[in-house]
Amino acid sequence: MTDKTAPIGIFDSGVGGLTVFREIMSQIPGERIVYFGDTARVPYGSKSPETVARYAGQIVRFLESKKVKAIVVACNTASALAMAEIEKKYDIPMIEVIKPGARVAAETTANGRIGVIATEATIRSNIYTRYIKNLNETLTITGRACPLFVPLVEEGLLNDTVTDEVARRYLTGLIDIDIDTLILGCTHYPLIRETIARIMGERVKLVNPAYETARELKALLMTNNLLNDRETNLSDGQYHLYVSDGAEKFKQFADSIIKYGILTTRTINIEDY
Amino acid sequence: MTDKTAPIGIFDSGVGGLTVFREIMSQIPGERIVYFGDTARVPYGSKSPETVARYAGQIVRFLESKKVKAIVVACNTASALAMAEIEKKYDIPMIEVIKPGARVAAETTANGRIGVIATEATIRSNIYTRYIKNLNETLTITGRACPLFVPLVEEGLLNDTVTDEVARRYLTGLIDIDIDTLILGCTHYPLIRETIARIMGERVKLVNPAYETARELKALLMTNNLLNDRETNLSDGQYHLYVSDGAEKFKQFADSIIKYGILTTRTINIEDY
Repeated sequence: MTDKTAPIGIFDSGVGGLTVFREIMSQIPGERIVYFGDTARVPYGSKSPETVARYAGQIVRFLESKKVKAIVVACNTASALAMAEIEKKYDIPMIEVIKPGARVAAETTANGRIGVIATEATIRSNIYTRYIKNLNETLTITGRACPLFVPLVEEGLLNDTVTDEVARRYLTGLIDIDIDTLILGCTHYPLIRETIARIMGERVKLVNPAYETARELKALLMTNNLLNDRETNLSDGQYHLYVSDGAEKFKQFADSIIKYGILTTRTINIEDY
Repeated sequence: MTDKTAPIGIFDSGVGGLTVFREIMSQIPGERIVYFGDTARVPYGSKSPETVARYAGQIVRFLESKKVKAIVVACNTASALAMAEIEKKYDIPMIEVIKPGARVAAETTANGRIGVIATEATIRSNIYTRYIKNLNETLTITGRACPLFVPLVEEGLLNDTVTDEVARRYLTGLIDIDIDTLILGCTHYPLIRETIARIMGERVKLVNPAYETARELKALLMTNNLLNDRETNLSDGQYHLYVSDGAEKFKQFADSIIKYGILTTRTINIEDY
């Protein structure tokens, strides 16, 4: 039987998944978390399904070595391209970020027109459209790849005229077709939520799958009787961050968006897994 | 004795090194070439010296398996962070792109003020400054990291107002201190040469290390008696491109900047080397 006090594993290609981490910390504060960011191979959004699936497999094996009780794929690209494969291969409860976002969007829209912004790979996979159509076939879904958003966020241009100009180009087509709901289909995008909201205008509701993902995780843990209801020995820290490169830089970013004293961050060689 | 008809190996993190490939094709057209682009792990410019050195080691082993007679490190970041280590470790003639660029810049400047634009990692290594100071201690070198140039080029925004705006920000400081020579210290940058030239103005000479690197390669091959002066059996093609991900996308980009019929491109798993 799995230990309820075991940590939850979360992974992303880099810093984006920290927006999901933050939400999980807030909704289930009693849990220990091991986070992995694949900074040596970021970004995933321009890479092929085979490559992203191979990377995700290595990360799952790393998280298994940390004895996690459940895994959150906190990266839309990995969710879109790798989830089916890793779910089949590994016997550990897993959750991803696309289904939760799709469900909220289907419930939110009033006029039936939903937009999705995401990486090139996620949009190409067409997965949001498939999930939403599964829920309600009458809805219209329009996807738009925003390949420069990740580098702009990684460069810290969160409130910047360049980000504004790039966002305006990506989003104009979605405004023109009168969507009323927009899914932030990449975990980096909530970090430029204000810019996106300003351009889309008040009429368009933004869906951030992080909130719903954390709720689903909690439900999954309860269903599997894995929610931590015991005192946990936290002498070695509640949160452990690992990256495949540049621990110091990552830690600075993490500390700036997660307000929680010191987050220890270590570098590991992910190719060994 | 090494076979003179053996190919030259060239590598880069992605498409940038194709600007060097192109120059080598034109200056020594009788040579066979094996090119490797590490598209599964691009970009290198934001990664650590340890990671880039490990990647470069794997690539050298891959190129050795292709029996290359010499290797061109056609990536400034790998040249800056990995060259010392791989040169020590492998017994094969190697050339990189930083020394050639440094030498041309030192010969070009009239007012003694040189600018260098490159990735974050290359600028942080301070290697251009060290090489140029070695040649002439009186010169002043100012470096500027341009982290968004690589994603902008990869997105194909070669002539675009966003690229203009980003370039203006990066370059203004260099204009203010009155440099007369600017090194394009990343093999992606020649692809936005026009934008950079327009912003810097006519007084500033741009140095593209590709041309000089190809010249040095030719000299290296002559010195080692490795220049191909024989008829080569080209029945299997003169140029072979390999990538670690996305061969089809890479091939399209390569075909657009290298005008040479069909460039076969294959994907390999670089982590196996």
